Amino acid sequence: MSETLYFVGLDVGGTSMKCGIVDDAGNSHSLVNLPTEPERGQEAGLATMAEAIRQAVAAAHLTLADIAAIGVATPGLGDIPTGTIVDPPNLKPWKNVPVKQYILDTFHLPTTYQNDANAAAYGEFWMGAAKGVDSMVLFTLGTGVGGGVIVNGRIVEGRHSHGGELGHMKIIVRDGRWCGCGRRGCLEAYASATSVVKRTREALSAGAPSSRLRCMVTNLDHLSAREVFEAASAGDELAASIVEETAFYLAIGAVNAMHTVDPDMVVFAGGMVAAGEPFLARIRHHVLENACAIPAAKTEVRFATLGGDAGYIGAAGCARQAYHDQRRR
Amino acid sequence: MSETLYFVGLDVGGTSMKCGIVDDAGNSHSLVNLPTEPERGQEAGLATMAEAIRQAVAAAHLTLADIAAIGVATPGLGDIPTGTIVDPPNLKPWKNVPVKQYILDTFHLPTTYQNDANAAAYGEFWMGAAKGVDSMVLFTLGTGVGGGVIVNGRIVEGRHSHGGELGHMKIIVRDGRWCGCGRRGCLEAYASATSVVKRTREALSAGAPSSRLRCMVTNLDHLSAREVFEAASAGDELAASIVEETAFYLAIGAVNAMHTVDPDMVVFAGGMVAAGEPFLARIRHHVLENACAIPAAKTEVRFATLGGDAGYIGAAGCARQAYHDQRRR
Repeated sequence: MSETLYFVGLDVGGTSMKCGIVDDAGNSHSLVNLPTEPERGQEAGLATMAEAIRQAVAAAHLTLADIAAIGVATPGLGDIPTGTIVDPPNLKPWKNVPVKQYILDTFHLPTTYQNDANAAAYGEFWMGAAKGVDSMVLFTLGTGVGGGVIVNGRIVEGRHSHGGELGHMKIIVRDGRWCGCGRRGCLEAYASATSVVKRTREALSAGAPSSRLRCMVTNLDHLSAREVFEAASAGDELAASIVEETAFYLAIGAVNAMHTVDPDMVVFAGGMVAAGEPFLARIRHHVLENACAIPAAKTEVRFATLGGDAGYIGAAGCARQAYHDQRRR
Repeated sequence: MSETLYFVGLDVGGTSMKCGIVDDAGNSHSLVNLPTEPERGQEAGLATMAEAIRQAVAAAHLTLADIAAIGVATPGLGDIPTGTIVDPPNLKPWKNVPVKQYILDTFHLPTTYQNDANAAAYGEFWMGAAKGVDSMVLFTLGTGVGGGVIVNGRIVEGRHSHGGELGHMKIIVRDGRWCGCGRRGCLEAYASATSVVKRTREALSAGAPSSRLRCMVTNLDHLSAREVFEAASAGDELAASIVEETAFYLAIGAVNAMHTVDPDMVVFAGGMVAAGEPFLARIRHHVLENACAIPAAKTEVRFATLGGDAGYIGAAGCARQAYHDQRRR
């Protein structure tokens, strides 16, 4: 057994899963990608997870005896203490999957479980944009809006595994847009990539002029958030107004989290990071306008730096934290 | 020196200050009240604080040698780590008052400092409505809306002493009501006692029928939130609609905090507690409608139980926590 501590980080997504070996100092030693294929059922999925772990260990030229602990992250609603995926929209038809217990039974190594947004937050906190701070709030922007909250160096998991479910804070309290969660007015219904596309499509259908967007997409059904952001950068007025609104909604989300936990830093991750510094500058502008003076001036607002690696690095980091907690007792 | 550990809790308010002795088990042994008289200046205020502490110790038949630590809480913006009141609206003309240092220099005892809402949250957490839980969020309703957040048994003070500044989360993001903070759309601008009165007055001025309210108050300038709540209980439709709106806004505040830290319990404190169970039931109703299913069903929503004593008990509790932390090191 080597003297360096090595941790497995496994980040399961709807399409593929990433698994890597990360050492005690946060350096990555391998990274493998396997297709998740949720449609093959959860038993097949669990077997793929175990296979990903074995491949990542081998790719790092290690054996399982070198591994101190395993961290797993999955999307959708999970029960964190038991490590169970409850009803994941991106992993249908999986239901009540005992991920943590399965990994534990398979590898007989200490195993931690997190939802993917919490893991990504921990990854950015440990080795990314928020390295060195004590507290941070992460918003991850994709199909939905995920979130993670870290206070005093620890993920706020919450009593019912709903800590950092920032996509479902209310932004518009009367007659808001419908959210995927079945309720109205959630941040996710305004600021996700899905919502950016939807709001743009609605404006175009309502006759808003945007020659550039109309040229770019022959079929509005295939419009992507990235195209809207690109059109905005290229000077399209409609796209620019949609992007500006999105920055505003995200800033409101940040302001509400800031007046609850008052973190050192707010970090934005996901596809919209490609929109670059001008987009971040607009978020910062609206934070300054809407937050109390001191946190408005002092809270750092940044983009994530780890990209799609935040999840597996964070999952490994959670395994590492639990490992050290255990040894301290 | 006695074997029981005794802590001083001092809760400074705009009108009066409460000081009591609380033992390690949370039992109170004395309580004194002195006028704050902020207009006499901060030196006089600090001297009164010291006098309140001396009187509380004597009233408990103790001497300063029996006291393990002192906890102080004050209203308004404070810098928690240094224990300085920065610019308290309720304690004008005080400014940059080094409360913690003054108490430390005067009594040579370990001293902690909190803002009053955080202290009240800790009081309810330690000995009140949230006794026995691990995490809670408190909303205190008065002239403004204060808040306190407790996660893993500890106050979330925040990086810039703005943890739990729940009154300034945004509830209405476009053209919202002006808040005392100088910005718009804050929870406080909708759900404080001041706002209840203001919204009622506006509705009456706009011609809303309310024979009961008009009978109750000959001069609308003297309308109180309590009168609005009483009129609502007595069946007045306008008052009932104002109260219902208030319950809705408070529920939105609760929902946003729930999707950030997901506590065991949300507690409402302050004058509106007098509105009783029907008001709480409406808050619960709106929480159920607006929060994600699991936290909506499982998060307890309650009224505070310590009333005006939460602050000094919580201040003593903070002193106690720091004392035990120190001994554990």
